[in-house]
Amino acid sequence: MGVSTVQSELEGALTTLARQEVRVHFSGRTDTGVHARGQVAHIEWPEQESPDIEALSWSLNGILSKNLAVTAAQEVDDSFHARFTALEREYVYRILNRRQRSPLLKDTHYFVRQDLDLKAMQDAALRLMGRHDFSSFRSTNADKSSPVCTVTRAQILNLGEGQLEFWIAADHFVYNMVRIIVGTLIEIGLGKKEPAAISDALEECDRNLAGPTAPPWGLTLNSVHYPEHYHLFQKTF
Amino acid sequence: MGVSTVQSELEGALTTLARQEVRVHFSGRTDTGVHARGQVAHIEWPEQESPDIEALSWSLNGILSKNLAVTAAQEVDDSFHARFTALEREYVYRILNRRQRSPLLKDTHYFVRQDLDLKAMQDAALRLMGRHDFSSFRSTNADKSSPVCTVTRAQILNLGEGQLEFWIAADHFVYNMVRIIVGTLIEIGLGKKEPAAISDALEECDRNLAGPTAPPWGLTLNSVHYPEHYHLFQKTF
Repeated sequence: MGVSTVQSELEGALTTLARQEVRVHFSGRTDTGVHARGQVAHIEWPEQESPDIEALSWSLNGILSKNLAVTAAQEVDDSFHARFTALEREYVYRILNRRQRSPLLKDTHYFVRQDLDLKAMQDAALRLMGRHDFSSFRSTNADKSSPVCTVTRAQILNLGEGQLEFWIAADHFVYNMVRIIVGTLIEIGLGKKEPAAISDALEECDRNLAGPTAPPWGLTLNSVHYPEHYHLFQKTF
Repeated sequence: MGVSTVQSELEGALTTLARQEVRVHFSGRTDTGVHARGQVAHIEWPEQESPDIEALSWSLNGILSKNLAVTAAQEVDDSFHARFTALEREYVYRILNRRQRSPLLKDTHYFVRQDLDLKAMQDAALRLMGRHDFSSFRSTNADKSSPVCTVTRAQILNLGEGQLEFWIAADHFVYNMVRIIVGTLIEIGLGKKEPAAISDALEECDRNLAGPTAPPWGLTLNSVHYPEHYHLFQKTF
């Protein structure tokens, strides 16, 4: 589900429970079709008294559709903002690289039939590490955030039977960044581009130097990290 | 998809390609909603000459829906029968045991909210090993196969974050056997039954001594094993 759908569903449920309008702030957007395992959002509860958060979470999960669930919730001080206090986001993009498609993995993996050169892709992925301008890896859609991101993890795991995972963590991401990086890594894996193409794209800031945008369903927002002192996610229900 | 759906879809596609009616024989039935990773089927090709099996597989996957794919195919001698020459079937049943449901695992895991005693379940599972009469673990639906099965694997894996897998392999299975075993193991995990309840049910041959039938979506037919001399699945496409 895209954030707009998730947001409106969550706001609708909270508004029902609070009997007043409640607005939800997410750590960042995810496109339609992208999965989220550890999305984080905050709300400002519209009443004077704090709600019973555990009871509120249970009520929410009773109202929300099967595609959406609250797995943890807690009270935070006013300095917390799901988007602006986040230190790092971590995504995983799943690829199925084998000759024939898999009905069981069709909604979570991008299926690539041609052989991928994993070593070239791993070499290329490492070039993403550190602080770079990711303008080449941003969709032409209006995106006013800074294109400079610091990548703290960029790793390709081979789980066997053709199942590949690309893990990437950064302080923030520009629009469609992970999917464009994956599209570029796949072109490198197919031998259409050299691993150095990543470095060139990072230097030149030209969207044409990167590959196509990989489809949304392979992508999952895995987790969002906040400063230690908020003591987040100590309690799940 | 249930075998009837899979069977009719596969027979329809093969009949289209052969321009004659083709009948498909499966290793065994799977209920509607049960997944299959390694289902095996055989056909008798209606023409004198053998088809190009690789080309036929590609054509089939072009015709079949996204929920169904051929991942390997080969020619076998006339003694082979997908059902009657199978030596062993292996199933896995996935459970999500945590407080709140997961939208990402809702189609592949049976969600159990209450705490499960894993040790009691593992103790109980081991009692399934060996040759027993599984009449207690058979649906009341007409099932003419022998209720005596030899279980060669019965193991519960804890993958963390509440994800449990129950693996079971046997020479054959009676109708709904895995789902009824899982329903019983869950009652044992919840403390409603003792681990010895498995042994009692195996001895008494009374469906009332076993637990309820767990839902289909947690179950996957993982693989089917045949005699070595058929040299099956050496080649995937």
